[in-house]
Amino acid sequence: MGDNTLGTRFKITSFGESHGDVIGIVIDGVPAGLDIDIDFIQSELDKRRPGQSNLTTGRAEPDKVRVMSGMFHDKATGAPLCLIIENEDVDSTKYEEFKNFLRPSQVDYTALKKYGGFADYRGSGRFSGRITASLVMAGAIAKHVLKEKKITIFAYTTSIGTLLDETYHDLNDVKHAIQIREKSPVRSLNPRLSKEMVQLIEDVRSQRDSVGGVIKCIVNSFPEGVGGPIFNGLESNISRAIFSIPGVKGIEFGAGFKATRMKGSEHNDPWVVEKGKIMTQKNDSGGIIGGISTGMPIVFNVAIKPTATIGKAQKTVDLKKMENVEYIFSGRHDPCIVPRAVVIVEAMTAIVLLDFLLTEGHVSPKFDG
Amino acid sequence: MGDNTLGTRFKITSFGESHGDVIGIVIDGVPAGLDIDIDFIQSELDKRRPGQSNLTTGRAEPDKVRVMSGMFHDKATGAPLCLIIENEDVDSTKYEEFKNFLRPSQVDYTALKKYGGFADYRGSGRFSGRITASLVMAGAIAKHVLKEKKITIFAYTTSIGTLLDETYHDLNDVKHAIQIREKSPVRSLNPRLSKEMVQLIEDVRSQRDSVGGVIKCIVNSFPEGVGGPIFNGLESNISRAIFSIPGVKGIEFGAGFKATRMKGSEHNDPWVVEKGKIMTQKNDSGGIIGGISTGMPIVFNVAIKPTATIGKAQKTVDLKKMENVEYIFSGRHDPCIVPRAVVIVEAMTAIVLLDFLLTEGHVSPKFDG
Amino acid sequence: MGDNTLGTRFKITSFGESHGDVIGIVIDGVPAGLDIDIDFIQSELDKRRPGQSNLTTGRAEPDKVRVMSGMFHDKATGAPLCLIIENEDVDSTKYEEFKNFLRPSQVDYTALKKYGGFADYRGSGRFSGRITASLVMAGAIAKHVLKEKKITIFAYTTSIGTLLDETYHDLNDVKHAIQIREKSPVRSLNPRLSKEMVQLIEDVRSQRDSVGGVIKCIVNSFPEGVGGPIFNGLESNISRAIFSIPGVKGIEFGAGFKATRMKGSEHNDPWVVEKGKIMTQKNDSGGIIGGISTGMPIVFNVAIKPTATIGKAQKTVDLKKMENVEYIFSGRHDPCIVPRAVVIVEAMTAIVLLDFLLTEGHVSPKFDG
Amino acid sequence: MGDNTLGTRFKITSFGESHGDVIGIVIDGVPAGLDIDIDFIQSELDKRRPGQSNLTTGRAEPDKVRVMSGMFHDKATGAPLCLIIENEDVDSTKYEEFKNFLRPSQVDYTALKKYGGFADYRGSGRFSGRITASLVMAGAIAKHVLKEKKITIFAYTTSIGTLLDETYHDLNDVKHAIQIREKSPVRSLNPRLSKEMVQLIEDVRSQRDSVGGVIKCIVNSFPEGVGGPIFNGLESNISRAIFSIPGVKGIEFGAGFKATRMKGSEHNDPWVVEKGKIMTQKNDSGGIIGGISTGMPIVFNVAIKPTATIGKAQKTVDLKKMENVEYIFSGRHDPCIVPRAVVIVEAMTAIVLLDFLLTEGHVSPKFDG
Repeated sequence: MGDNTLGTRFKITSFGESHGDVIGIVIDGVPAGLDIDIDFIQSELDKRRPGQSNLTTGRAEPDKVRVMSGMFHDKATGAPLCLIIENEDVDSTKYEEFKNFLRPSQVDYTALKKYGGFADYRGSGRFSGRITASLVMAGAIAKHVLKEKKITIFAYTTSIGTLLDETYHDLNDVKHAIQIREKSPVRSLNPRLSKEMVQLIEDVRSQRDSVGGVIKCIVNSFPEGVGGPIFNGLESNISRAIFSIPGVKGIEFGAGFKATRMKGSEHNDPWVVEKGKIMTQKNDSGGIIGGISTGMPIVFNVAIKPTATIGKAQKTVDLKKMENVEYIFSGRHDPCIVPRAVVIVEAMTAIVLLDFLLTEGHVSPKFDG
Repeated sequence: MGDNTLGTRFKITSFGESHGDVIGIVIDGVPAGLDIDIDFIQSELDKRRPGQSNLTTGRAEPDKVRVMSGMFHDKATGAPLCLIIENEDVDSTKYEEFKNFLRPSQVDYTALKKYGGFADYRGSGRFSGRITASLVMAGAIAKHVLKEKKITIFAYTTSIGTLLDETYHDLNDVKHAIQIREKSPVRSLNPRLSKEMVQLIEDVRSQRDSVGGVIKCIVNSFPEGVGGPIFNGLESNISRAIFSIPGVKGIEFGAGFKATRMKGSEHNDPWVVEKGKIMTQKNDSGGIIGGISTGMPIVFNVAIKPTATIGKAQKTVDLKKMENVEYIFSGRHDPCIVPRAVVIVEAMTAIVLLDFLLTEGHVSPKFDG
Repeated sequence: MGDNTLGTRFKITSFGESHGDVIGIVIDGVPAGLDIDIDFIQSELDKRRPGQSNLTTGRAEPDKVRVMSGMFHDKATGAPLCLIIENEDVDSTKYEEFKNFLRPSQVDYTALKKYGGFADYRGSGRFSGRITASLVMAGAIAKHVLKEKKITIFAYTTSIGTLLDETYHDLNDVKHAIQIREKSPVRSLNPRLSKEMVQLIEDVRSQRDSVGGVIKCIVNSFPEGVGGPIFNGLESNISRAIFSIPGVKGIEFGAGFKATRMKGSEHNDPWVVEKGKIMTQKNDSGGIIGGISTGMPIVFNVAIKPTATIGKAQKTVDLKKMENVEYIFSGRHDPCIVPRAVVIVEAMTAIVLLDFLLTEGHVSPKFDG
Repeated sequence: MGDNTLGTRFKITSFGESHGDVIGIVIDGVPAGLDIDIDFIQSELDKRRPGQSNLTTGRAEPDKVRVMSGMFHDKATGAPLCLIIENEDVDSTKYEEFKNFLRPSQVDYTALKKYGGFADYRGSGRFSGRITASLVMAGAIAKHVLKEKKITIFAYTTSIGTLLDETYHDLNDVKHAIQIREKSPVRSLNPRLSKEMVQLIEDVRSQRDSVGGVIKCIVNSFPEGVGGPIFNGLESNISRAIFSIPGVKGIEFGAGFKATRMKGSEHNDPWVVEKGKIMTQKNDSGGIIGGISTGMPIVFNVAIKPTATIGKAQKTVDLKKMENVEYIFSGRHDPCIVPRAVVIVEAMTAIVLLDFLLTEGHVSPKFDG
């Protein structure tokens, strides 16, 4: 239980705070010989970066990746790859001001109880969403390896608040899907709904409020027979990783909660053989049965709660006086983190799946791409 | 990634198959000096046991616990506690008959790909729901320790198919709630709805079909400040453990997926101080913020899919001929596993939470109860 | 830190006590499809078994292996393999008698401090050398897999007390070496010295005393390039495993402590190429450089202390009176455990090396032997 | 098996290469509230630093510690503490020149086989002794915490080559012992022998050769009852950590290899009670019985081989021509690394022991010093 390390063969260790010097990640297990594609890592970071659209926080950060170790002649050496970004646009004044008040549904109280008042509270410190930049950097490395194995990971926004995208999207051409998604400030695949979602986010912002949403993630071409029963199934490990993302409050695979309202005869995915290949006729199992991949797309939904930081007056406790008060917490924040979380969901998924492939021998520690 | 071991300081290792000699568990980290209460372990096993009501599978198993190691003078010694039950009512004939056909939404295909045809397929072997008896035994030990710390874990059925219990239940008196729940064959707290649920399950059984449902789990009196950010939060570890239970396809904490449709001003839980104690006015966070316990009840919902084994004709593949066929898989099974899964959800929750308490120093490895 | 689980991909969990019902091991990661060769496991157990010669303890145990799970049609299924032996010749009367006195250099005091008086003290309970039977069973499985990869592990006694075997032994033909070794009751390869060693052990026994010794272990045909720098080198992992054996107080690789008295120009192993193959001209590195295998034999020595249990009067503390006393601890024991420890050293080595090969992808989880 | 991460509750992740930008360490589990004493970390680094005496390598490095994360108001926050030093005096020209030749008893060949030619070979890259600076930084943090618990760790040189210090040193006053030791360029406690050792090292250097030695480590005031049997004993974990240090080829606890030549009646440590406290009359067990601390000093010896890098002509292989040749490898190096390794042995010991104390609840994650 090292809080900040995850994985067996693709092992990542995250460090850094929102208002400290850097955000960083040590990645142990990058296959030796892999090209370290700085441009790709940067393009992934840019999808998470604040300030990419006017829906996000006003904090202006270039989030420029720097390699500290593990690279030689632009390739992975097999030694730990350490990547960092520097924190530049830091404004900690607000946090000093309201450190005496507990922000509702924020970590102020739980961090106080766990770390006894020593935690860095500036910008939520270690609990800030900014920490996810370290995950996106590791995810970019993992995605790169998976891409060489023809495995793609793609996530997009399916709902913002009560606006739900129920249209069917063909995701076989992931490159094309990314292009469509990146045209939408909310990372929707539905151009009409995207506009409504943008409007909704602007409305809640003008109300000094926030809103949540749902992200769907699809993994194509993942090999069959990977995972395991009981404690080490794909669902167990993916869910563990996804709940590492601040703001996530739920996950469901395949038909998920809808499956609970179905009969077995409806939910069961019939097996069929086509041109010598066995597959399922539909995919309510979400590509996983008994914790093991079926060879069908891995599909899951992630519930993101509304941003806890809002500009409205809220009930809270004045810690010095131990009195109930109303307080307005100011500060920069996103009225909706769903659009930026899309790339983080992809990153965590890539990290977990690559770890499985390395551990079970599907990817070699000496890169043969 | 040892598939069958879970935990850091309360570490469990599961073994056994559905139609093998035994189902067993090795529990490493039981506090030395804890009374091993065989009656309590047995009573927990009895809640999971097949044949407890006429809603369950026809397999008749006494599931009688036997201690193999780790106990001396009826107390835990600090050495690994090994508990087993024997498999008695084994009927493997059916499985020989249809091993040439892939059961839809069952592990036949994924196990074949992972283990190359060597897995024990009888009664689904290692993937059988019967394996969860090992988890219930470990869960009983964990619950016992938690009980000494005044922490209670309680789960119940909130929906079967489309029948949803939306009434409010006061769960402060857990003993009383257990009594009510155990009067219901489906483990509902709503006597009227319970009858409808029973009827629904009997209906789907007579249709040779199956149905799923939702289980809610509530943990009372868990200390605040336990857990951590990023990879080792409470949600991460609970979800990982819950997805170890066969048939689980989703989990949500607090308001969960509903939170995605709320505004921040609705979802945020205001802090209040009452008689010197800080708490939240409501609990949409489900008792966890930033991966760390708030001191409020930990609350989550678990989605259970309909039992995959049904008696209806289903489309599948004849593996020898590599042809698409229709096939009727006979065999004993539950038309709905939700009622029996209630105690398994409690068990996995207890195991994970005790591991946190031992690891973070809230429970001593030398029992002081 | 689960005290009783070791390994990443070949993960073993030991349970059982000296005077409990059973000694057992759960082995997770046995390649699916491996023949479970009960005769071979039994023959390994027989080399550790008490009563195999008149140099060992008088406890008479058949130590007959029984498979509890993980085997189907005599092959490994990929599920955890649980193996047990039953304890039969248990005589706990002595331990009741002297539980008030601390046996010198035995675990009575340390176990008391760690487990607060709840540990099973009969026959040293969980700390008994008898626990190593579980390691030998797991080692037999690991050796079997390694044998299929043409890797052999061979250990033998190089000293008993001051009697030191300094002759050179050609160990290329391991089968032959085993035959010679098994003719010696002390597992020496030197027939003349073997007799002296036997005499020495009989002498110390008649003096109610005990004696220690050194075991050398050699691994042939281990592939080059396995292991790693820093925390996960071969020496780190082998030493960790070897110190798990009760009575071990030292380990050295290659020239070991002798290397500290050599100059670099003497100690360095020159590289040579012979018929296109690169190797070292000698092997003072013991087959490991930078924590990674060189392809040369892996060689190390293990120091075993004299058996702590002796029949002479010894100074100790009367716990009730808290007084210094002299006490004679009776009971069955080996005057020298070195001969029986030889197979345990082999077992732990096999377990660690197979874990490396599975983890680094040199052995497949689906057995292709 | 992440090669570069060690520990359970005090978890360290090392990164960096000899000729890369930095050497760094992420330390997860530093008790929140601990003062981060930069001066102390620096003073520990200075003991390892090259150029501290004219016995060491000519590489001139200030090795100045910089905090990247985990500190706020000069105290640990509970978040991962990342510490780095920068590499400044890098001269990689030599390594380009001789990368076609395998340095004897160096990692060139094994790294080639493991990482397929992608490893950074400059200055031995990830395998360089320079990596141990990361361990010394983590060790300084661990020592600081232990000091608050009155636990001291002290190591010194007992032999260089054949020069062996057999005099008795009273180590109860560790502060005084450090003063004496630091007056000796070889970190001996024996002023007369120290001079001979210095002369010996200067002699081997003038011969373009190198020499090894032995380091003794003593831990005072470590609490009794810490550790465990089988796989997680103190010896297992200390040895694993010590073998992480490049150049270590052996370790022995208490009487160690000498114990193998003793009788049980000589080796056994009698228990005595003095003023109500139970202890042993002597300490041939080295403070550990059954893997658990006895409360007596923990004592062990570490064998360090002669530096592999020497300036003499050596036999090796020309990789391009695949021919046997003689080659002179030039470059900066220590003729004897023993004096600088003393502080590294202390560091690894502190890291392991603090991890035990945190894991078993003897040290709180919220610092109460």
